[in-house]
Amino acid sequence: MNKTIYNFSAGPSVLPKQATKEAAEAIFDFAGTGIGILEMSHRTKPIEGMVAETDSLLRELMGIPENYDIVFLGGGASLQFCMVPMNLLDESASADYTDTGVWASKALKEAKQFGQINVVSSSKSDVYNNIPKNFTQTPGATYLHVTSNNTIYGTQWKSFPKANTFLVADMSSDILSRKINVSDFGLIYAGAQKNMSCAGVTVAIIRKDVLGKVKRTIPTMLNYQTHIGEQSMFNTPPVFAIYVMNRTLHWLKQNGGVDAMEALNNKKSNLIYSALDASKLFTGTAAKEDRSTMNIPFVFQKGAVAEDKVEALQKEFLSFTLERGLEQLKGHRSVGGFRASIYNAMPIEGVEALVKAMADFEKKILG
Amino acid sequence: MNKTIYNFSAGPSVLPKQATKEAAEAIFDFAGTGIGILEMSHRTKPIEGMVAETDSLLRELMGIPENYDIVFLGGGASLQFCMVPMNLLDESASADYTDTGVWASKALKEAKQFGQINVVSSSKSDVYNNIPKNFTQTPGATYLHVTSNNTIYGTQWKSFPKANTFLVADMSSDILSRKINVSDFGLIYAGAQKNMSCAGVTVAIIRKDVLGKVKRTIPTMLNYQTHIGEQSMFNTPPVFAIYVMNRTLHWLKQNGGVDAMEALNNKKSNLIYSALDASKLFTGTAAKEDRSTMNIPFVFQKGAVAEDKVEALQKEFLSFTLERGLEQLKGHRSVGGFRASIYNAMPIEGVEALVKAMADFEKKILG
Repeated sequence: MNKTIYNFSAGPSVLPKQATKEAAEAIFDFAGTGIGILEMSHRTKPIEGMVAETDSLLRELMGIPENYDIVFLGGGASLQFCMVPMNLLDESASADYTDTGVWASKALKEAKQFGQINVVSSSKSDVYNNIPKNFTQTPGATYLHVTSNNTIYGTQWKSFPKANTFLVADMSSDILSRKINVSDFGLIYAGAQKNMSCAGVTVAIIRKDVLGKVKRTIPTMLNYQTHIGEQSMFNTPPVFAIYVMNRTLHWLKQNGGVDAMEALNNKKSNLIYSALDASKLFTGTAAKEDRSTMNIPFVFQKGAVAEDKVEALQKEFLSFTLERGLEQLKGHRSVGGFRASIYNAMPIEGVEALVKAMADFEKKILG
Repeated sequence: MNKTIYNFSAGPSVLPKQATKEAAEAIFDFAGTGIGILEMSHRTKPIEGMVAETDSLLRELMGIPENYDIVFLGGGASLQFCMVPMNLLDESASADYTDTGVWASKALKEAKQFGQINVVSSSKSDVYNNIPKNFTQTPGATYLHVTSNNTIYGTQWKSFPKANTFLVADMSSDILSRKINVSDFGLIYAGAQKNMSCAGVTVAIIRKDVLGKVKRTIPTMLNYQTHIGEQSMFNTPPVFAIYVMNRTLHWLKQNGGVDAMEALNNKKSNLIYSALDASKLFTGTAAKEDRSTMNIPFVFQKGAVAEDKVEALQKEFLSFTLERGLEQLKGHRSVGGFRASIYNAMPIEGVEALVKAMADFEKKILG
């Protein structure tokens, strides 16, 4: 294949070419040991060293203070939906959850098994096209939960609410895409398969003082303290997914770190948002002030296309872009239309190609 | 490196060269899509097809009947230690557990949170060098749990006890190494990182009728029914680890399936056991009738080496074998000495090289 492909998938999604190449090479020989990384015991110095280095790199890149532990877990962010309240929320206590999308909603539903959950805000009736920012926190709530970026709806907390106690955030789809102040959070978790690695590993960043305060018995594997105490080596961790993260973090560091990514992500997303705002055919679906730099859903403007032609024209746009190597642009079924996911590893050339395709298609259709 | 390396690691461990090569290639381009497997959404036809094919292959190779579901999960077999009783054992009910090693012991310890656990047998006082086979099952126990192969001690259930109700087995370290009758089991689980794949995915094979009988509320991600209902796609599964499994199962099928593996594993392990039985320097540690075909721990014979020279001589043997490319032969700390793990993907040439090294070393030391 000679055509350059740009992969706009919402996740698993594009990774740095350098990182995936290095990961593939390590399958044949890891770090000059003569043994491939898939076949090497986690109880060896090279693997232990690699996992420790991944911890250090993440700590450095995100500015994670010493009073936080980092663990690498299997099971996905969805498993964190129960692990968070299981570890942090006592049965007699309450927690505040903001309902900004399907994932936020799944997180709060799961938490209800473990304590009183207060849904302090919701944009569900707007198909989650905005982030409600005026809400009242519950006095005495153990924590306030937010989903930093909502992949399906393309909304993002631009600044985080100040929690009465501490924030817990699902950052699966925008971790490492912008500078955040880790000290504002008691716990951050993120599935790796957008900005960090392939699917198979989830990171939790945990302030030491938030643990050990619930009375329930926590199953060993679901207790953060188990994994903290063993540096994520209590049992066999997902070694390869951690290594892909290691190589991705190296790439990120070589490319200027989170500050540089944030500038690039602003630039990339502005290119698309400017194109949408100037378009007579397309329009973005998210409220302007909450627009995500990671996921950009867009649809045909009402009135620009006859109702009975929308479906056919959607297919046509997807074929039109596919011919140019622009893949996975179909929107999520709950929003419809299109979605461009432009994580850290999406080069600006991909975004430029998309913006050009949108303009060319508009010219073709509207003249 | 020109020297052939044989990797005797207990896990993660040796995989078929063909499978790892195919997996590495898919990182650059999966199935001719132009997108790498680490970067492709699980909600695409190529990935859904690959996961479904992996299910079919495993079903075919193990002879799994239609009244069983297969799920691919993250978290490792250690997470199954709590998921099994959470899903199968009601609080007022009991289950029987056999204590044949550290992993069996961890499984039963974890189960105690969920119901009455009867430890019906234990070889702990013998440092688990045998499998106790005479024990009485508890009338009314929901299930009988066994660990089919004990990686650390090199013991293996040669035939499984007949359960009053149904068997649950942790087959992490010998799944696909020998023919078993799946219908004897209500649930089989196995971390993939020995005979099936790299670390990062765990398989559970579940008879349909054993589920849905407990009264407790099970967190969504810990409920087998969640994953069964969504063909392991409830959330993002560990795609790459499933693909390594897919390629390993293809290799296994091409090489004669489980019957051929069983014959080869018997041949490989017999080579080492015969050498141990004939040796004046080395001896196996496991009871003869329970000897594993997967993991073979061995030590210096008492009296063959002066007590104060054992440690130095152990180091010498490890250097001696390492020079010949025989890696990861150090024994587990709880048994000491050496351990050769010879899973499906260990070629007979590796075993022959080890047997020759043992003989050469013995000649060097004892003359």
